[in-house]
Amino acid sequence: MSFHYLDNSATTKVSENAAKKAMQLMCENFGNPSSLHSFGFEAEKELSAARENIASLIGAKENEIYFTSGGTEANNLALMGTAEAKKRAGNKIIVTAIEHSSVLDTAKHLEALGYEVEFVYPKDKNGFDIKDFENAIDEKTILVSVMMTNNETGLMPPVSKIPAIIKRKSSSALFHIDAVQALGKENINVVSLKCDLMSISAHKIHGPKGVGALYIKKGVRILPRTFGGKQENSLRPGTEALPLIGAFSVAASEVKVFENYDKISKLNIYLRQKLADLSDIIINSPDDASPYILNFSAKGIRSETMLHHLSGYGVYVSSGSACSKGGKSHVLSALNIDDDLADSAIRVSFSKESTKEDVDALLEALELGLNTLQRKRK
Amino acid sequence: MSFHYLDNSATTKVSENAAKKAMQLMCENFGNPSSLHSFGFEAEKELSAARENIASLIGAKENEIYFTSGGTEANNLALMGTAEAKKRAGNKIIVTAIEHSSVLDTAKHLEALGYEVEFVYPKDKNGFDIKDFENAIDEKTILVSVMMTNNETGLMPPVSKIPAIIKRKSSSALFHIDAVQALGKENINVVSLKCDLMSISAHKIHGPKGVGALYIKKGVRILPRTFGGKQENSLRPGTEALPLIGAFSVAASEVKVFENYDKISKLNIYLRQKLADLSDIIINSPDDASPYILNFSAKGIRSETMLHHLSGYGVYVSSGSACSKGGKSHVLSALNIDDDLADSAIRVSFSKESTKEDVDALLEALELGLNTLQRKRK
Repeated sequence: MSFHYLDNSATTKVSENAAKKAMQLMCENFGNPSSLHSFGFEAEKELSAARENIASLIGAKENEIYFTSGGTEANNLALMGTAEAKKRAGNKIIVTAIEHSSVLDTAKHLEALGYEVEFVYPKDKNGFDIKDFENAIDEKTILVSVMMTNNETGLMPPVSKIPAIIKRKSSSALFHIDAVQALGKENINVVSLKCDLMSISAHKIHGPKGVGALYIKKGVRILPRTFGGKQENSLRPGTEALPLIGAFSVAASEVKVFENYDKISKLNIYLRQKLADLSDIIINSPDDASPYILNFSAKGIRSETMLHHLSGYGVYVSSGSACSKGGKSHVLSALNIDDDLADSAIRVSFSKESTKEDVDALLEALELGLNTLQRKRK
Repeated sequence: MSFHYLDNSATTKVSENAAKKAMQLMCENFGNPSSLHSFGFEAEKELSAARENIASLIGAKENEIYFTSGGTEANNLALMGTAEAKKRAGNKIIVTAIEHSSVLDTAKHLEALGYEVEFVYPKDKNGFDIKDFENAIDEKTILVSVMMTNNETGLMPPVSKIPAIIKRKSSSALFHIDAVQALGKENINVVSLKCDLMSISAHKIHGPKGVGALYIKKGVRILPRTFGGKQENSLRPGTEALPLIGAFSVAASEVKVFENYDKISKLNIYLRQKLADLSDIIINSPDDASPYILNFSAKGIRSETMLHHLSGYGVYVSSGSACSKGGKSHVLSALNIDDDLADSAIRVSFSKESTKEDVDALLEALELGLNTLQRKRK
């Protein structure tokens, strides 16, 4: 069967070079970076080189990168670690209502612990009113956490405007960006973005699952969530997952932000144009969304029904975030998208490897689905 | 240069079959197990098969295994998750003073949070007095955490006797075993051991770094440390690191506990006999320690000095735990081993792949070291 994988925001295929690096670090240079002998030192050198390389992808320095088991742990560490470190300075945390569940659920956990959490809602599916952030930030605010690219619709909150607002309000709040869906797709620079913390993950950029990192700006102090061992400057102990980290580094090396952005933008425009010719298709993504994600609804056909239909033709898309396993999308709900449309939402997500053939296969199977699948009764 | 890796308690070489499985799950069957389409379902099937296989290695059921990023996270989750879940039942936690730092430092963190922590000390380098556990357990005790095999000397605390004591004291305390250094080396069965929680790790049994698991007995409830996503029954969210988990499962399949135990026991006895012929060598491991670990001191020669000397001959050993990066060993200190001997301690740790040639190379280089290295002044 043909294979058209358009679910790259869920996970990506690991690049062959990245996988080979993992293989080498599993079977040849397999030492423990913490071991004092020369074989351990070889591993430590690999670790350090990978750290520097991954740092450079976001304009950071080597010693500002803390490896984690993925984006979820990085987000948890950013929020919990800041809340704990700054609890004497204040107790208010601001997040948007469309954050990934690893930010949102952690924020809710902090709320249960007694922190005040304000959820900033988008004004509509096209984005936020920057004033809502301004109104939310006060003297008790210790953290503002905003994603760079939303994982369900590609909406891009105004992250670049947040630091100026924090400054204008004379707040000492830290600023965290969840850049998991933006890494490798946007030109990211932590210095120009003026963020204190940034979460990234390998498996969305053709690196392996099981590794991510938290950028922590030099001088910013957050507290650990895990104890034992001196790895990652004692902030995140445990033997470093060097095969994954090395593969992450190779995947980072293979990123070509601008070249791929142009290619995928064209693919996105092509898909949007073709979808406009079909009846009963509503686009849920904003016009200025990340080109890597396009969310639309096939009116009256349940997401799961369409998803399984497409899957039968070797076309793999998502009904929302893979993390919610088919549950109701808190993102579409916060974007004020009608329940009927949310129930029939399909997310197409590209990677640099996506092609026009993939899009054509999707369109063909989709049209077939629109003509044959049972519509829900109104 | 010849290569004699005798630091297998720090980490092991990944088996070729395990690495190949990781490769396949990175580059071919790379789906997200949480995705609803058939490509995701293929990944979910791999995940489920791996979970069942790893469970069977410790006599557990598939739904009792919760994957983590390694032993450190498993130990943290066991302690923190129990403390949080049972805080209304009591506030006392009992650990031994020779636990791995991921248990010990977590216990100290809980102590700082207001829990009462009792550290049970061994009576000497040979082991514990079981009465010390009996005296420590009281009606407020919610958790007893004891390692199966100590990572520095191979000492094996009396884990099999703990459940009867907990019962005799009419305590509802949970019993956690850190089995990271015992997995694949001892015949482990969670049912006959009567434990509620058990931590295991892949990279000590020729699986990859970055993955481990916590066994949680059916019916036992602990609380999560990480939030967002429904993976691992919502106890440990984040996209499952399937390539690592699949490789862990293959490594688990390749374990032959009894066959290797006999082989390594002979190697251990051979090394002990040869060491007895050398002057100024003191054995720090008990006679009945795990055969996979032998800790000894070369009197008057600093561990690091000897370690680097051996390393120059392609013989890789450790001065203690790789996690402590050369710091003073809390284990040797708790075992009441003189500072002078602790400062010159060398840990040899075997894996099933270790050979007599490795031991002979060690002995040759060691003897050379004893004759040529500068002794510390008394």
